Amino acid sequence: MDSFTPTGRTQVRRYPNRGVYDKAQVYGILDEGFLCHVGFAVDGQPFVIPTGYARSGDQLYIHGSAASRMLRTLHQGVDVCVTVTLVDAFVLARSGFHHSMNYRSVVVLGKARQVTDREEKLNALRSFTNHIVPGRWDEVRPPTDQELKATTVLALPLDEVSAKMRSGGPIDDDEDYALPIWAGIVPVRTQMGEPLADGRVPDGIPAPDRERFRR
Amino acid sequence: MDSFTPTGRTQVRRYPNRGVYDKAQVYGILDEGFLCHVGFAVDGQPFVIPTGYARSGDQLYIHGSAASRMLRTLHQGVDVCVTVTLVDAFVLARSGFHHSMNYRSVVVLGKARQVTDREEKLNALRSFTNHIVPGRWDEVRPPTDQELKATTVLALPLDEVSAKMRSGGPIDDDEDYALPIWAGIVPVRTQMGEPLADGRVPDGIPAPDRERFRR
Repeated sequence: MDSFTPTGRTQVRRYPNRGVYDKAQVYGILDEGFLCHVGFAVDGQPFVIPTGYARSGDQLYIHGSAASRMLRTLHQGVDVCVTVTLVDAFVLARSGFHHSMNYRSVVVLGKARQVTDREEKLNALRSFTNHIVPGRWDEVRPPTDQELKATTVLALPLDEVSAKMRSGGPIDDDEDYALPIWAGIVPVRTQMGEPLADGRVPDGIPAPDRERFRR
Repeated sequence: MDSFTPTGRTQVRRYPNRGVYDKAQVYGILDEGFLCHVGFAVDGQPFVIPTGYARSGDQLYIHGSAASRMLRTLHQGVDVCVTVTLVDAFVLARSGFHHSMNYRSVVVLGKARQVTDREEKLNALRSFTNHIVPGRWDEVRPPTDQELKATTVLALPLDEVSAKMRSGGPIDDDEDYALPIWAGIVPVRTQMGEPLADGRVPDGIPAPDRERFRR
């Protein structure tokens, strides 16, 4: 796999050594996350809306209310920024100034396009569901034509993309290391709890195996 | 405590029953989260940047690279949207169409103002640090004048604000409940791991107690 070419808009300028353009790493972050924040402007006012997403090949798909809000005002190609952030740790330094977070984030810029092709739409919906629980799509009742029509799916090409990450411990000023202050990292983990059936599942149908959640 | 007044821009239109304007609930979400996504537009192109934040009274404070990027291009009041999202569960329905997430999110609109007053800036920095580990500010080396100067802090009044939330199990179509498909929720939790010292902490200095992380 190759790399994304930084543009004037995706070149990481602050802490340039934290910039990542390698496709495998960028896709790894996108595939590990499940929540994105979609930014778009209406009359100069930015809006940032959280929503689910899935990657399929070199396309990022979003759907649901974020898409609706955008489409309510803008029916053409929409300039958007989609950001996915994973927080890995709090970084506690010896000074307030050097406190930080370890994180991995991906920023995707581009024009969102409404998906109208039936096969592409079905593939996107399959990706959404399987992104949360691999294989789930084949276990659920397939979508009806009416549901397909009622669902807005937007695609964003993974083209103008960059990632940024910080890892490791605190970096303190030399003279502060002698201070009697604890410093290090506190890992932050996103974990799935025990599945909880909704009370109307027929007897003998097991919950999805925990292994399938990958987290 | 009272409520926020919805404006044309913060009124929740899709699933209006999910809209929350109660200040206590909104502040509860802001105080539970630790990562926000800041949206701003440059020449019509939106950018969404993840960063830490803290609330102090009716002000939301952000700092670091998001502030820098904004300030690099815009030196006056900046139209921003700051969004904080907590994911509580995956909602697995009997159809792909009714899959969802349980979440609580807050959207803040307004103009960010650069904090120049020394006392307000110190208070904001204290809030950032104590937001991650309550009481931490009093344990670390205080900021120098140089560090204060090097830190950009932006304040956003908590004025035009709304929250949105979903809770509960899947809501399936009546005829789907008979299907032999597991459905329910899978809780999603953000949890802190064991603190890991950076190897240069003097003997006898304990790590912050796990209780202090509130997660």
